[in-house]
Amino acid sequence: MPRSGDEARARLQQAALGLFGEQGYDGTTTAQIAARAGVTERTYFRHFVDKREVLFDGEEQFRSKLLHGLATAPDGAPLRMLFHACRASVALLEDNRPFAEPRFHVISNTPALQEREAAKRASVNRTLSEALVARGVEASLAPLATKVGMTALGQATTRWLTEPPPGDLNAHLRRAFADLRRLTSDLA
Amino acid sequence: MPRSGDEARARLQQAALGLFGEQGYDGTTTAQIAARAGVTERTYFRHFVDKREVLFDGEEQFRSKLLHGLATAPDGAPLRMLFHACRASVALLEDNRPFAEPRFHVISNTPALQEREAAKRASVNRTLSEALVARGVEASLAPLATKVGMTALGQATTRWLTEPPPGDLNAHLRRAFADLRRLTSDLA
Repeated sequence: MPRSGDEARARLQQAALGLFGEQGYDGTTTAQIAARAGVTERTYFRHFVDKREVLFDGEEQFRSKLLHGLATAPDGAPLRMLFHACRASVALLEDNRPFAEPRFHVISNTPALQEREAAKRASVNRTLSEALVARGVEASLAPLATKVGMTALGQATTRWLTEPPPGDLNAHLRRAFADLRRLTSDLA
Repeated sequence: MPRSGDEARARLQQAALGLFGEQGYDGTTTAQIAARAGVTERTYFRHFVDKREVLFDGEEQFRSKLLHGLATAPDGAPLRMLFHACRASVALLEDNRPFAEPRFHVISNTPALQEREAAKRASVNRTLSEALVARGVEASLAPLATKVGMTALGQATTRWLTEPPPGDLNAHLRRAFADLRRLTSDLA
């Protein structure tokens, strides 16, 4: 039996990921997740508001790494500051890879989880966009800059999680921002 | 009473939009939508698979305008071809403004609808990305190009729907792509 709330939480996440992978998200109940984690369903709902949320626990840490990276970025163009923010999230993402890789595949196969992920991403984008404005970026430019920068981070993490060999996430991040530059220089 | 399937469909959409605006999405049932449209709930479900889908009927037309625009774009850089695709969707979006404007506000206030919209957008992006590859764009670059281009279109339509005076969507589109260029030229 788990000895602490944190341990129960981690076991619930592993149990959910395992069950979603084995029998699909739709075919899994929160009762089954709780049973595999060795806790009651009531404990499940003390940790997570619904069946989707169990896969989105790292969200706040991720947001806070990005915000810290943005706050400490040298003054510069918006996408340069965002690149700095993305780099500040790399260590967290790399530490989390053993969970993130199966999670990526489960989400890719589950529309309900893709929808939740998109909503989370939109919320992170709003926060970052406000932080960019606080750093002096024009309010009319900040949301576009944020979406473009976060799209590059998404591209980098997708490649890192799906293209063998894993390589390092920083290299994928540099490549994604280089791709951005290439794409829009053709637009000039 | 509606005389044809198409007419019933349009009445259901107007009824849903009205009710969602008046009493919120969560507080509205498909039975109420059907009643206001003067049809049975069974008719509602003959047209739409669930309560969300009634606001996403224009999706296929939108996708087909974009694809046609992409297919007929002059050979060029990926974002130039995407700009051409976006322009090909402008007339449809402008014709649809009386519906799109209240719809925008309802979706902005409703997480469940935002999630559905994000899923629709991801699906359109996948189609466009495949079409870019068919036009000779590197497969490793096409998804990023598509997301960036569609983010610019999203920015343009958001401004067009929210910033008074309405102005014309083409001008907002040019401005959004100019912003993209500006953002990434700073990155060089």
